[in-house]
Formats: sequence, structure tokens, C-alpha cells
Amino acid sequence: MKVTLKDLAKEFGCSVTTVSRALKDNNTISLELRKKVKKRAEELGYIPNIVAGSMRTGQTKTIAVILQDLRNPFFSILAKYIEEFASNQGYSTFFITTSELIDREIEAVYTAIGKNVDGILLLPNQKDTRSIEILRRYKIPHILVGRYFSNLDTDYVIANDQKGSYLVTKHLIEKGHQRILFLNSYMYISSAYLRLEGYKQAFLEANLPFHENDIIIVSTDRGEACEVINSIFSKKQEYTAVFTYCDVIAFETIFTLNELGYHVGKDIAVAGVDNIHSDIILPIKITSASYSRKDMAYEAVNLLIKRINEGINNESGDHYEHRVIDISLSLGQTT
Amino acid sequence: MKVTLKDLAKEFGCSVTTVSRALKDNNTISLELRKKVKKRAEELGYIPNIVAGSMRTGQTKTIAVILQDLRNPFFSILAKYIEEFASNQGYSTFFITTSELIDREIEAVYTAIGKNVDGILLLPNQKDTRSIEILRRYKIPHILVGRYFSNLDTDYVIANDQKGSYLVTKHLIEKGHQRILFLNSYMYISSAYLRLEGYKQAFLEANLPFHENDIIIVSTDRGEACEVINSIFSKKQEYTAVFTYCDVIAFETIFTLNELGYHVGKDIAVAGVDNIHSDIILPIKITSASYSRKDMAYEAVNLLIKRINEGINNESGDHYEHRVIDISLSLGQTT
Repeated sequence: MKVTLKDLAKEFGCSVTTVSRALKDNNTISLELRKKVKKRAEELGYIPNIVAGSMRTGQTKTIAVILQDLRNPFFSILAKYIEEFASNQGYSTFFITTSELIDREIEAVYTAIGKNVDGILLLPNQKDTRSIEILRRYKIPHILVGRYFSNLDTDYVIANDQKGSYLVTKHLIEKGHQRILFLNSYMYISSAYLRLEGYKQAFLEANLPFHENDIIIVSTDRGEACEVINSIFSKKQEYTAVFTYCDVIAFETIFTLNELGYHVGKDIAVAGVDNIHSDIILPIKITSASYSRKDMAYEAVNLLIKRINEGINNESGDHYEHRVIDISLSLGQTT
Repeated sequence: MKVTLKDLAKEFGCSVTTVSRALKDNNTISLELRKKVKKRAEELGYIPNIVAGSMRTGQTKTIAVILQDLRNPFFSILAKYIEEFASNQGYSTFFITTSELIDREIEAVYTAIGKNVDGILLLPNQKDTRSIEILRRYKIPHILVGRYFSNLDTDYVIANDQKGSYLVTKHLIEKGHQRILFLNSYMYISSAYLRLEGYKQAFLEANLPFHENDIIIVSTDRGEACEVINSIFSKKQEYTAVFTYCDVIAFETIFTLNELGYHVGKDIAVAGVDNIHSDIILPIKITSASYSRKDMAYEAVNLLIKRINEGINNESGDHYEHRVIDISLSLGQTT
């Protein structure tokens, strides 16, 4: 028979809280009692058991976060906040990375389901909707984060991507730039699609012509933006500014332009999206569309826990919630 | 009774592999068969169950990584590699962050134990050794990563911190710097202690005086290095170079010095440790002591899995393994 905190508390004639604190070596408990409790717990083979709790409630108090790449500070900082908020509400967090590969995403979903997680925060790579179909088939509470499907309604928490891109492009146009190279991500990614809309919107509003050729698709793989920038800027071209899908691409762009002999912020402007600087102070502050990763993590964790609790109470509703985090322009030294 | 892949395979007269692939929508299986298998799996209530496997082997095929802060790219990139290597070997990875707080570290250890993980990679905050004592009490295989205790032998994987610091300091001295401000971390952290040793070693070798006052302790909390640099460099001082415990502190140092009107790389030199640039191309490349986070993750995961397997076979040895990752100097634009 499994030994519980209650058993230990009874034996020592103190509260469960006291025993729990003693086991954790909390110094509000006398050193003597701590030693005694730990010794006895060991003798009885006591193991702090969260799984035992799960047998009562049907919950494992675990969530999984399926995300693209912890290398990109955007994801790792978001992950940090998710873990913190989830932990504050008593949930442990699994992270599984997919490297933007659909097979790894599906594998990740199955792994999470197999681990009996209570719910999943999915940052989808959007190549297709199979992950969502699997999650629905197994009735696993899930929230999309950062991206959504235009052809499949779900719960999601995203940023106001179109506004962000519009604000950055408008700022560049106001600074006198008329040909702005846009290193964007793939069009099947909702945030890339919306950022293109924002870019177009700013050009339209300024009565400037929009050139389809000014949009180049790059991934965030290390070195890919460097290659593209090298090939464009090592020959004659008309761009006086570069706008990028995210800060990680902007960082590579700035590094490469400076290597080519440009002086970013003087000869040429560069701006991104994410404002990593608000969480990590980097050697230079770049101009970027900025929104709170903390708010995004907070909304995502809360909505997921709400869905988890509804699932337990069999109150699954038919309508989905869409939360959109506001975005603003953060000026830096690069425009 | 639980439905297994074997049951499904029998029903369809095909292999377990085929059924498994069909459920994952793998396109090596005909669309028709995929549809049939998924439909039938749903009818029978099949759930891919890793926990079922754990009942046979006593393993949950899960490891936990307890680390300081996913905000710092050093940790998040290391986490990425750990997750990848563990995943390649069939293990899922939990991350729990401690923010360098001892109570959260102990809480994290208990959480991981409660989740029945097979083993733990611990990046300890080193304020004391209670976490190790708990892990030993519950006989959980564990490896320390990045830091070790000089007064308590364990398995560990660290970098050659003294050499790294020695190489950077030697480089700065060779460039003509004689007063090098060292923003180091707390002395109870083994890597901080070793980096101080390397710094001293280079001064000794160059027959230069070592000034105790040139060492200032800072944490990696956002903005702390900025404050220290502001207070030192806004008045008259003798430093022509700053060496920092890690790149994240160097980034803040460079940003702040430039804000104060310095031109880092010309008026003043700055160098760090970690060479984040090798994984994320940042706007500028800084001079840094460099070692492979990939190698560190690889060694740590392999050693942990070795210990997990020994545990199962009751072959727990009495000697600990110490693996030290080599380190070199990577020159950048800041020295």
C-alpha cells in the first residue's frame, strides 16, 4: 500500500503541510523534525505522487507545448512565460519541438496524447490541419498559439499581425523609403499572410506602387536570410530599407548588410517583428513591431485551463474563442 | 479492455507498423487504408499509449531538464539540443525552470519525481546541495550539466570554463588592455569560480597585477548589467576592456556603453562566454569563449540514458563520470 503525506502527518501528529514542508527541507520547520520526517519517509518508501492525484481527478496536471524551435528567442521566451503561468496554476509543462516539419508535429501530438496530458498549446506549422483533426478525434483540449487556420475554426491566441506590419511599413514610408524589401515567411502561415496584408495596406494608403517582386520568402533557418541578403545586395538594386517577418531574420539581415559595407541605420533601414529587445537587451536595439509575449502566454494558458475544466465538467461549448494581442511600433537604432 | 495496435493489425490483416503509420496519416500507406484504420481505431477507442509501455519496462521514457531560465539563449539552445537528442532515443522531455531560486529547484525536483521521469538533467543553481540529496534519496538517475559541486562528487558534463576565460583574458591582454573589468557571476557557481581562475591565470602569466576590485558580481536578470555599467562608466575610470561571465551580460554591456557614447570595438573592448552567435546570427558578432552546446547536450543525454539503463539492470556503479567539453576563442567585432 502506498504511503501518503496524510500517513506521515498522522504518525508525527502534525499537519500535512508541515510534513510536506519538512520533506522539502523548508526552514520554517525545525531541523530536527525535518530529519525525522525525511528518514521515516525513506523507510516507508514515500514518493511524492502527482500521478496518484490524477487517478482521483482524471487529470494529470500536465500540459504539452508543441512549438517550432527553442533556438528562436521568440519561442523560448514565450515558452518561459507559458511554463511560469502554468506552474503557478499547478500544471507541469512538456515542450516538444517540431522544426516546422509536419511529420514531427503529428508525432509530437501523439507523444503528448500518449503522455496523458490534460491539454495542448499548439504553435502549428500550418502545412496542413491533420494535427487538429487528431486532437479532435481524441478530444484533447487544445489552443492554437501565434497562428490560426482561416479554413478551420478553433480556439486561438494570436497577435494583431496585420496592424504590426502596417505600423512598421508606414514608419518606413514616412522616413522616405519607397522600395522596401520584405523578407516574409511562407504564405500558408497565417501570421505571414497577415503581415503581407499590413505591408500592402501601408503602401496603398501612401499611394505608392506595390511591387510583387519586393517580397522574398525565407525561413528562419540559421544563415538563410544571410544568403538572400548577400545575393540581392552584392549587386545594384533600389532598396533603401528591409522589413523582415521576425527579429531573428532582421538580425541576420543587419549582420550581413554591415559585412557588405553598409551602415544599417544610416545607409539603409532594417526593421522586424517581435521586439526581442523587450525581453533580452541585445547589443543594438532594432525597430520592431512589439507585443507582449507575457500577455500571449497568459491568455493561452488561461484559455487552455478553462477548456480543460470544461472538458471535465462535460461543458464543451460549440463556439471557439479568439484572442488577439495588441501590437505597437517600437523604434530602435536601425531605421 | 484496452485496444492495442496489435488488435488493429490483426483485424486488418497487416503489420503493426502499417497500422501505426496509417494512424499517423503517413503517405506511404494508401489513403483508403488510412481512412479505414483511423475510423476503426476511433470506434474501438484506441489511444496511443506510451504509459502502457512503461508498465512493461518500468520506464516512462520521459526525462526532465531542470534549468535556470529559458529567456537566456544559452539555456534555450541547450534545451533545444537536449530535446532533439532525447527524442532521437525515444525519450520525451519536460522542462522546468527555477529562475536560480533554490526553493523552486527543490520544488522542480519533486515535480519531476512525481511525474515518474526516468532521469533528470539538472542545471543546478548551487546555493546548496539539497536537490542532489533528494535525487539520491529517491534513487533517480541524474546528471549535472554546466556546473558541478567541488564538495560533492556526482556525474557531470561541463565546459572547460577556466580555459575559456583564460583564452579571452589573454587575448585582451595581448591587445594591450591592462585593466579589464570582469562582470562575473556568484562565487558559489562553479563556472563563475573557474572563470575567475582563468582570468587570474592570464594576468599572472603576463606578469600584470591582479586587482580584486576589478571583479564585480552581477546576475543575468534583465537590466542588472546595464545598471552596473552605467554607474561605473558614467564617471572617470581606468578600464579599457570589459570581460563578462556570459554573452547575455556582454550584450547588455555593449548596448549600455554605446548609449553612454562609447564605440565598442574601438574605444573599448567587450568579450563574453558562450558564443551565442554560433547558433543565432546576431546584428554584431562579439568576441567570446566558444564551446559546442550540441556536444554538451549530446554527452549529457547519453550519460543520463546510460545511467537509466544501469538502474534498470541494477548495475549502479560507485564511480562518477566527469565529461569536460573543450573550449576555444572566437574573435568578433567587439575587441
